[in-house]
Amino acid sequence: MIRVYFVGTGGGAPSPYRSLPSYLIRREGFYALFDCGEGTQRNLMEYRLGIMSIKLIGITHMHGDHVLGLPGLIQTMGLLDRKEPLYIMGPKAIKDFIERTSELTGFRAPFEIRFIDSYEDENIRIYKFPTCHTIESYGYIFEEKERKGLDVEKLRRDGINDWQILRELKAGKEVRFNGKTLKPEDYIIVKPAIRVAYTGDTSYCEKVIDSVKGVNLLLHDSTFLDEKDAREWGHSNAIDAATVAKQAEVKRLALIHISSRYRDTSQFVRLASRIFDKVFVPEDLSYYILDREP
Amino acid sequence: MIRVYFVGTGGGAPSPYRSLPSYLIRREGFYALFDCGEGTQRNLMEYRLGIMSIKLIGITHMHGDHVLGLPGLIQTMGLLDRKEPLYIMGPKAIKDFIERTSELTGFRAPFEIRFIDSYEDENIRIYKFPTCHTIESYGYIFEEKERKGLDVEKLRRDGINDWQILRELKAGKEVRFNGKTLKPEDYIIVKPAIRVAYTGDTSYCEKVIDSVKGVNLLLHDSTFLDEKDAREWGHSNAIDAATVAKQAEVKRLALIHISSRYRDTSQFVRLASRIFDKVFVPEDLSYYILDREP
Repeated sequence: MIRVYFVGTGGGAPSPYRSLPSYLIRREGFYALFDCGEGTQRNLMEYRLGIMSIKLIGITHMHGDHVLGLPGLIQTMGLLDRKEPLYIMGPKAIKDFIERTSELTGFRAPFEIRFIDSYEDENIRIYKFPTCHTIESYGYIFEEKERKGLDVEKLRRDGINDWQILRELKAGKEVRFNGKTLKPEDYIIVKPAIRVAYTGDTSYCEKVIDSVKGVNLLLHDSTFLDEKDAREWGHSNAIDAATVAKQAEVKRLALIHISSRYRDTSQFVRLASRIFDKVFVPEDLSYYILDREP
Repeated sequence: MIRVYFVGTGGGAPSPYRSLPSYLIRREGFYALFDCGEGTQRNLMEYRLGIMSIKLIGITHMHGDHVLGLPGLIQTMGLLDRKEPLYIMGPKAIKDFIERTSELTGFRAPFEIRFIDSYEDENIRIYKFPTCHTIESYGYIFEEKERKGLDVEKLRRDGINDWQILRELKAGKEVRFNGKTLKPEDYIIVKPAIRVAYTGDTSYCEKVIDSVKGVNLLLHDSTFLDEKDAREWGHSNAIDAATVAKQAEVKRLALIHISSRYRDTSQFVRLASRIFDKVFVPEDLSYYILDREP
């Protein structure tokens, strides 16, 4: 199960209604934060989510609204005496940004910061893809890998509930049961990967469509409602975002990076849903649960 | 009349109850902000105070909790297309900090930033004083200058209400009235200066006592309740702050920079008031009005 926390859903400047960009994606004890606008650490506290559980931070690009909360978050981790290493992904300049701001504010992290290009463990993969913005900019995919699991329904139908038999089958071994030979391949099913994509800042972008094909949830820039000049600013409007979602055949679309000029976002949903109807505009401090599909 | 806005009354790390240090002092249309911890720009929006009205920002020292909200505030001013120059006071390193963070986040202010050492106009003086912290650190005095005004009470008693006569007297001229000569010195009174002092971070400090003598309101570091090792960290506890207030004969004391470890601050007031009883612990987003004394 993956939870996506919409820590800050605004963009550019904060408003009383939306904070600057930050999204936390959590799978069991693994927390990854994507972008870290000013105010992120305090918003995380509002969720009562321990900031020390964050293992990895991915930054999309070096504009201030996406990155100016990072030095403060790292310094609070230091104040709380973090020892665990922290993984950082992002554009090349992110290393310099962290090191310079630490120097300028007389801070030395008591933990290691590891700059990495992608992340993978037994259960999770996190990787970047390029987007179309005014400067070097990336989106992120957070993937819970496909996993083999027992077909609980079929086992129930066949009257099999002995945990030792289940263990053998799961380990890929044949088992004798009621005079029959049970074959593991008959009881093991593949649970598909779950993928969440976050674009950061982007205008309508073919590279994004290629990269987010079929994801379960797409968080797409929708800075503007329907302004045609969104592209000139390296941003999208709600129609651009819905078009990408449709062409990439994603399962669900969240419109994010909403400009502070909008308070009511009902028009965003109305416009976008003409093109792609599984769409919503998350509020700050809300979250969304993605469970494995059957 | 001066209003002091307690934008962020915490210190070190934010908590859900207190934000990082920032205090806005306002006299009519003149707004000065002292320190700018992460989250300041959004807290200012909660007050519905226009951030563009800020003319001057004074930074006490270069620790992250006091300064990491500054790049974001300046960038939002830029996004809102500020043209007015912005005055910045602070330690020498503040210039480098603003310039480096702007470069690293690809930002160029569309307005002039003027680094100054003190500020003075017809009505206001703002100046620094040294404090005792772990690095170069200053406190600030915001002074509304003493002013000459008409003694409204005496004029009423003497039956004088002709505005032309009032104008002449105010301009220092003698006036004939009911066969008598009115002398301006009989009707002009001096309204004393009003001064607010903000210490930033400091341990118990003789230099602070000298600098804040007799101020109308003292905002003093009270990071800790009664911990004896406050001084080792370059901070004060509530007893230190009350002792300074008493020795400096200030009129009122606000305990600030409260560590995130405390939620209930009633003990702060109880302890401090044994030494100095005109004391309070302001909440975030509250404000305090200082009017001229009679």
